[in-house]
Amino acid sequence: MIIGKVTGSVVATRKNEKLIGSKFLVIEPLKSMASEIASDKFVAVDSIGAGIGDIVMVARGSAARLACDREDAPCDAAVVGIIDDGTGLEK
Amino acid sequence: MIIGKVTGSVVATRKNEKLIGSKFLVIEPLKSMASEIASDKFVAVDSIGAGIGDIVMVARGSAARLACDREDAPCDAAVVGIIDDGTGLEK
Amino acid sequence: MIIGKVTGSVVATRKNEKLIGSKFLVIEPLKSMASEIASDKFVAVDSIGAGIGDIVMVARGSAARLACDREDAPCDAAVVGIIDDGTGLEK
Amino acid sequence: MIIGKVTGSVVATRKNEKLIGSKFLVIEPLKSMASEIASDKFVAVDSIGAGIGDIVMVARGSAARLACDREDAPCDAAVVGIIDDGTGLEK
Amino acid sequence: MIIGKVTGSVVATRKNEKLIGSKFLVIEPLKSMASEIASDKFVAVDSIGAGIGDIVMVARGSAARLACDREDAPCDAAVVGIIDDGTGLEK
Repeated sequence: MIIGKVTGSVVATRKNEKLIGSKFLVIEPLKSMASEIASDKFVAVDSIGAGIGDIVMVARGSAARLACDREDAPCDAAVVGIIDDGTGLEK
Repeated sequence: MIIGKVTGSVVATRKNEKLIGSKFLVIEPLKSMASEIASDKFVAVDSIGAGIGDIVMVARGSAARLACDREDAPCDAAVVGIIDDGTGLEK
Repeated sequence: MIIGKVTGSVVATRKNEKLIGSKFLVIEPLKSMASEIASDKFVAVDSIGAGIGDIVMVARGSAARLACDREDAPCDAAVVGIIDDGTGLEK
Repeated sequence: MIIGKVTGSVVATRKNEKLIGSKFLVIEPLKSMASEIASDKFVAVDSIGAGIGDIVMVARGSAARLACDREDAPCDAAVVGIIDDGTGLEK
Repeated sequence: MIIGKVTGSVVATRKNEKLIGSKFLVIEPLKSMASEIASDKFVAVDSIGAGIGDIVMVARGSAARLACDREDAPCDAAVVGIIDDGTGLEK
């Protein structure tokens, strides 16, 4: 999993029906978890009530579906935890 | 998921039979979601009626198959939403 | 999926038995789909009769197995289409 | 799998219920397994009793779930071994 | 799949029980398959009897498990062939 900050959200009125009701958060990875040469924000489905400004843990790939409301949702990234504390994260 | 712009499409007359009928869109990721040093367009199957110029949300990996007409299609990227609005996407 | 050119092939006499009979093609991604700083050729299993010089569409990850003769083949990349035409692929 | 050093841990009080009880370790890949231009730490679930300072082997993607307590945990990285010795790891 | 050279091996006495008996090889990707800016060695499970110095084909992701002794092994990379010959691999 990687850790990032929730910086915003996106709205998609027209979407795959298995994603209806999902909240789509924009995630900016922590600098120690990101590349220096890339700006690698991505969109993750929220299922634990995260909000803008929260530092969250995100699962990607097939693991993400296990955190969605529907396990057949075409989702490849999901917020799976809100980080309270951490060590060893510095770059 | 990442967000990108539909810039074109490709045609493949000879293809895996499980992909027959699929529409193949060329996707250019948003600058805030792309690498500065790479040109990382890719091809995604459309299943929601996206068109050239649309800003779309794309699922990759095994999630993509759940958005295809056939769940056994050899497809690793699919358009799953058309973006209407968003915040926090800037680089 | 990404689009690339078939530049060659490899031979492996000793291999996993579930790959016996597979044709292994060397794929060079299109410049607009590759990184400027990496040389990122890879090997994909062919199942549609592609040959050297063909411009092909390749599925990677678990999707690739769905294009192989055996769905339990340990294969992570497969040629799924031969490209006839395309727009919006420029860098 | 890649090899890295455990540099810390993170705490997430609010998390997906399938991750309750998991220990989240911060992993820094070995230099010979990392990119020169990226700082690519990530978080992995521990299931073998690894601690800070250990050199560990980490599985990512769907393989990680097979090392978690629950195979339906939304986990994309897991520590699967503690390295005692190795050759050929130099850059 | 990518092609690389076996440069060594690692030993992990304490490991996930589903990996007991596995041989862990260190793989260095061919220059034409690697990034110029990264040193991207990784560890793959051997199931075909490869040894140090061999040029091998490696499957990654969920495909790797299909080449392991146990399909529930938490393994994300496996040697699936020993390369005898190849064309089109140059950078």
